[in-house]
Amino acid sequence: MKDEIKRIAISTGGGDAPGLNAVIRGATISALNRGWEVLGIRDGFNGLMFPERYEDGGIIKLTQKKVAGITHLGGTIIGTINKGNPLRFPIKDANGKWKEIDRTDEIIEAARKKEIDAIIAVGGDGSLEIASVLADKGMRVIGVPKTIDNDLEKTVITFGFDTAMSFATQCIDRLHSTAEAHQRVMVIEVMGRYAGWIAVECGIASDSDVILIPEIEFDIDKVVEKIIQKEKAGHRHALVVVAEGAKPLGGDYSVITSELGRKDILGGVGDKVAKLISEKTGKESRTVVLGHLLRGGSPTAFDRLLSLRFGAAAVRALEQGYRDVMVALDPPIVQYVPLKEATSRMKSVPLDSDMIMTARNLGICFGD
Amino acid sequence: MKDEIKRIAISTGGGDAPGLNAVIRGATISALNRGWEVLGIRDGFNGLMFPERYEDGGIIKLTQKKVAGITHLGGTIIGTINKGNPLRFPIKDANGKWKEIDRTDEIIEAARKKEIDAIIAVGGDGSLEIASVLADKGMRVIGVPKTIDNDLEKTVITFGFDTAMSFATQCIDRLHSTAEAHQRVMVIEVMGRYAGWIAVECGIASDSDVILIPEIEFDIDKVVEKIIQKEKAGHRHALVVVAEGAKPLGGDYSVITSELGRKDILGGVGDKVAKLISEKTGKESRTVVLGHLLRGGSPTAFDRLLSLRFGAAAVRALEQGYRDVMVALDPPIVQYVPLKEATSRMKSVPLDSDMIMTARNLGICFGD
Amino acid sequence: MKDEIKRIAISTGGGDAPGLNAVIRGATISALNRGWEVLGIRDGFNGLMFPERYEDGGIIKLTQKKVAGITHLGGTIIGTINKGNPLRFPIKDANGKWKEIDRTDEIIEAARKKEIDAIIAVGGDGSLEIASVLADKGMRVIGVPKTIDNDLEKTVITFGFDTAMSFATQCIDRLHSTAEAHQRVMVIEVMGRYAGWIAVECGIASDSDVILIPEIEFDIDKVVEKIIQKEKAGHRHALVVVAEGAKPLGGDYSVITSELGRKDILGGVGDKVAKLISEKTGKESRTVVLGHLLRGGSPTAFDRLLSLRFGAAAVRALEQGYRDVMVALDPPIVQYVPLKEATSRMKSVPLDSDMIMTARNLGICFGD
Amino acid sequence: MKDEIKRIAISTGGGDAPGLNAVIRGATISALNRGWEVLGIRDGFNGLMFPERYEDGGIIKLTQKKVAGITHLGGTIIGTINKGNPLRFPIKDANGKWKEIDRTDEIIEAARKKEIDAIIAVGGDGSLEIASVLADKGMRVIGVPKTIDNDLEKTVITFGFDTAMSFATQCIDRLHSTAEAHQRVMVIEVMGRYAGWIAVECGIASDSDVILIPEIEFDIDKVVEKIIQKEKAGHRHALVVVAEGAKPLGGDYSVITSELGRKDILGGVGDKVAKLISEKTGKESRTVVLGHLLRGGSPTAFDRLLSLRFGAAAVRALEQGYRDVMVALDPPIVQYVPLKEATSRMKSVPLDSDMIMTARNLGICFGD
Repeated sequence: MKDEIKRIAISTGGGDAPGLNAVIRGATISALNRGWEVLGIRDGFNGLMFPERYEDGGIIKLTQKKVAGITHLGGTIIGTINKGNPLRFPIKDANGKWKEIDRTDEIIEAARKKEIDAIIAVGGDGSLEIASVLADKGMRVIGVPKTIDNDLEKTVITFGFDTAMSFATQCIDRLHSTAEAHQRVMVIEVMGRYAGWIAVECGIASDSDVILIPEIEFDIDKVVEKIIQKEKAGHRHALVVVAEGAKPLGGDYSVITSELGRKDILGGVGDKVAKLISEKTGKESRTVVLGHLLRGGSPTAFDRLLSLRFGAAAVRALEQGYRDVMVALDPPIVQYVPLKEATSRMKSVPLDSDMIMTARNLGICFGD
Repeated sequence: MKDEIKRIAISTGGGDAPGLNAVIRGATISALNRGWEVLGIRDGFNGLMFPERYEDGGIIKLTQKKVAGITHLGGTIIGTINKGNPLRFPIKDANGKWKEIDRTDEIIEAARKKEIDAIIAVGGDGSLEIASVLADKGMRVIGVPKTIDNDLEKTVITFGFDTAMSFATQCIDRLHSTAEAHQRVMVIEVMGRYAGWIAVECGIASDSDVILIPEIEFDIDKVVEKIIQKEKAGHRHALVVVAEGAKPLGGDYSVITSELGRKDILGGVGDKVAKLISEKTGKESRTVVLGHLLRGGSPTAFDRLLSLRFGAAAVRALEQGYRDVMVALDPPIVQYVPLKEATSRMKSVPLDSDMIMTARNLGICFGD
Repeated sequence: MKDEIKRIAISTGGGDAPGLNAVIRGATISALNRGWEVLGIRDGFNGLMFPERYEDGGIIKLTQKKVAGITHLGGTIIGTINKGNPLRFPIKDANGKWKEIDRTDEIIEAARKKEIDAIIAVGGDGSLEIASVLADKGMRVIGVPKTIDNDLEKTVITFGFDTAMSFATQCIDRLHSTAEAHQRVMVIEVMGRYAGWIAVECGIASDSDVILIPEIEFDIDKVVEKIIQKEKAGHRHALVVVAEGAKPLGGDYSVITSELGRKDILGGVGDKVAKLISEKTGKESRTVVLGHLLRGGSPTAFDRLLSLRFGAAAVRALEQGYRDVMVALDPPIVQYVPLKEATSRMKSVPLDSDMIMTARNLGICFGD
Repeated sequence: MKDEIKRIAISTGGGDAPGLNAVIRGATISALNRGWEVLGIRDGFNGLMFPERYEDGGIIKLTQKKVAGITHLGGTIIGTINKGNPLRFPIKDANGKWKEIDRTDEIIEAARKKEIDAIIAVGGDGSLEIASVLADKGMRVIGVPKTIDNDLEKTVITFGFDTAMSFATQCIDRLHSTAEAHQRVMVIEVMGRYAGWIAVECGIASDSDVILIPEIEFDIDKVVEKIIQKEKAGHRHALVVVAEGAKPLGGDYSVITSELGRKDILGGVGDKVAKLISEKTGKESRTVVLGHLLRGGSPTAFDRLLSLRFGAAAVRALEQGYRDVMVALDPPIVQYVPLKEATSRMKSVPLDSDMIMTARNLGICFGD
């Protein structure tokens, strides 16, 4: 028997991602059309944990009007937060020492008081882990995966990635003509701490020459070789896409820098790679860090659609009696996977995938 | 044993679609990097059938330089054609009557003379049917599916669709504010003769109110009811997306028009629907036909990537000894399906899919 | 001596135009920062004439919050209207006959009652004429010009035009590859009833072949000649941009159609031109009507900036004691022109301008 | 009497700018249609100075075909260079010391040998100075101004600026939602070493809070005050746009950093400002450097049109007998100004302009 639902709450946690508002809209309208009430919890679960901090008590009533015209907007109308995970909430003990406590019971309690029958938790692995604990403690919870990096195993893709990848491609396009005009090496640093999805996809789509990703430790001399070989073929510029988690052979930039007789190379991974290339080829190189530009902004049509589908699917899941699943895309359909498994494995770019083979076929160098 | 390949040819047939050039580039570079020669057949198979019509003999040698900088360009550098299918080529007989002949033997013969070992045929169901016949006759052929409408059964999606859907969404966004300002009903006609994919996807992504598709015969009174209901809720404008293949109950517009005491309503399906809505609601309505705007232009990053992957996969298929398959996307991977099955079934939007359910959850009316 | 201002009202009238919301924001923030109150009159002047029709009494109090995040939004948050001009308002007399009355006294009266000290009237020639009459009757009024067609004499350009022109260019880009692939003539109909600014600018920017504008009656045979000449040079497609106000020699399409032995050619001016070209060249031609797509949507950065500048300048004008001027762009500065002169002359594209000369230098045909 | 022209050459010098190719096309087609021959000099004037370095002899013959389809492409098909100014060309003397020589006589000589009757020189102040010297030495030269920063006195605007400003605005839009979600200060560094045009325009258009430009030395405490005041009003994020040439009071960052008890703050001006804000407000801040992203890419419709007009106007100038002028935009018309005056003054943003007043009216802080 399914328990009847009268009131649900939505929470968005972790970093900004294009499509959050569309998920909120998809879930809200779908729930309202079933006669349910919908609440938005402010700033992750803060609205439930610290209601006193908010003039509105930390809860926003979501109505047709509140979610009108938000599908294409970046950000999240209910706010998000990426500090203060309630599973490991930092507080000072009596002796003034920092320790971590689990505040999920408080969340459950606060939700019960507000007669919230179920929660739709939108977020990355942090938020989904919290969601899973809340489910264990009896709350009905549906997770909606959020990761710009596309590194969640259980969904083929999630919202925000297409926007990030598309905008990265557009940026590299702009750099292309300048690289060519100035016969420079342009190093473009993109997000991807543990997985190179964005780097691989925008690197291929933009006809880049080199793609460096966390999945493949790179040999800087292979990169240099590629650039020189291109120069010999008459093209004196090169585009190098670097995921922020890319590492050289051995995993440590210091080995290469010391070879070059330098103590350290300052800056992010993009700067390091650019300087190494400069020193080894004698060519001018420049770094452009796209990071923040890829996190926000208006979602692509693909991401709007996927977000609305995820929001609506989360509500259907509740109606069908699910209590601890995550919505996931298994194209062309949205399905449900156990919340517990949701964050169990990190999804790397498979090195034998047709994507990587395509890149290699096109002559793109991964530094291996 | 695989026969060695030394020279391949690429053909693009049927209507324009964003990504054709990226497929050409993907296949060309992949083949050149294997040491193969690559030829482009002009205008579908015309370059082989009518070499005398072309100054260059109907064949373009595809080199690194020829395919440089074309990934993001609309159109096809080798030309396309959507008339004169070689399977049913119209000619006049001795008595001056039109009849159809099969010219595929000539194509095979011409290809042999040019020492073409394999053909990569990019096109819709027409081109893929030709490709299949050529394969039956011994030519090694790899098909690459092309359909803006997304109505091919054997691939979850193909290139060009994302571009069309995205641009349609962007156009509806622009119409939204005007519809609102003028309190009008805007009817947007999009492509989709047999399947409503574009209409459904851009309709949801753009927060439209009504979506009419070939898969669901619509009751105009249900549409009118939706618009009136929205007006009662304080929103005096409405957005209606219509696939060009949408049909009213009974499949015939004349029934409704005669009810209205009119002989006929001129114009396309968008105009018809707009006029019916106007007459039945008394509201101003306007039609915008997006058709041609969705066929061309620069592909989205998604479509560029998919096209490059398809092109490269076609070459790998040849290398692996395939001789009559089509590349297909089964996300996240590209795989191969028998060319014969490629066009065997039309892919409609499944009415029980989460996509349609999402639309209904959001209150979108399909006229049923 | 300048009368002190405590409360102003903003009105937006006529058709939708990208930038209306930015004007509202520019004026509102500028006024609030001077300590003034700001009201938005709903739907042109309807909020003052028919307060009973609105739940909020026809007036929206404009605050920092109300105008936050609206710069990039199409439409107008206070509504607009393009029927029921208060200078010639249609009513039925005692005998049931329609007549027109002047309701501007009512507007003045209603404004006085609401203690409105000045009005910022955003609109086209209709709205600016009303504004001028209100100024004559003693109301302090600042006009802000609005015309997508760019046909107001007293401002070099106004907001909305850049957005319309840019999007038209983008649409023609998309049609280009398809025209080429299908070797077709594409006729693109754009706005411009009395002046051809949009047609000329997007026509040049998109490398079109023919541009037909109200300023130059066209000889269809000259158009045909251009298309044939292009075909002879090896380009079998052509792009023809037509302003909706373009006319053939003699000003009448019926002359040409009857020459062709046809009673009439249905459809808009784009369709007519397309059919004439088809009949005279034997080439396939297609029409795309961009009209509605150019009126709405998110303004370009140029239009956002210009709109904010106009809104702020209107407030500064009031502070400086102006009572009957229109803001206008005389690049690089915004200045003030008498409201009476604002609509006195229509601004055509000067035939001896460098713009027209550029088009002719590029080989573009105007049909003369 | 005007000397007859049979052959002209085009040169593009200095950094990449969106619209270069459109200028080339505008000039080329205009000249070809007059029966003139058109040559493109490779890489600034290098094609004339060092013909031996090029397989094609440093000269590209520009034909209808060569300039087809390039209007919307970034970069320049004839190449550019921003090193080795021929007026001060660095060479080693007999003793191995570097000195600078004037190579313009060689350019004139080489041009004469190739029977070049006139040169269209597209470039910034460096290129225009060379152009002016060439004119003094008898070559007919028309200059076309190029500066992304918009800092040339004699033209109201030039091509490339609108593209840069628009893309900067689009980037800030993307950062907006993330700044808000994370309650951060986002510092966006844009181009503008001597003039703050891009910063001012994209700062206003994107509703930024602070704009720091070379024209106004900023007091960091005023910036901090603005951010705190915004926070008090309930908005815990802020957007700060910084031109690369912005300077603190006294013109030296070291004063402020030493106040903070730090030796130095590493990184560009954006990083410095971000760190100062962080230290003084305790808020998280992030820097995004847009520099390279604003130089390249496809030009906006506005820039395409302006570039084509400039190219065509340069050719008309030659036909009319001009020998040493620069084309310039005095909206709405293109006119000619003496080449000598072209680079005589740098165009700053006038502090009493309506643009700056608008920013102040909107509450934007310049740090003064």
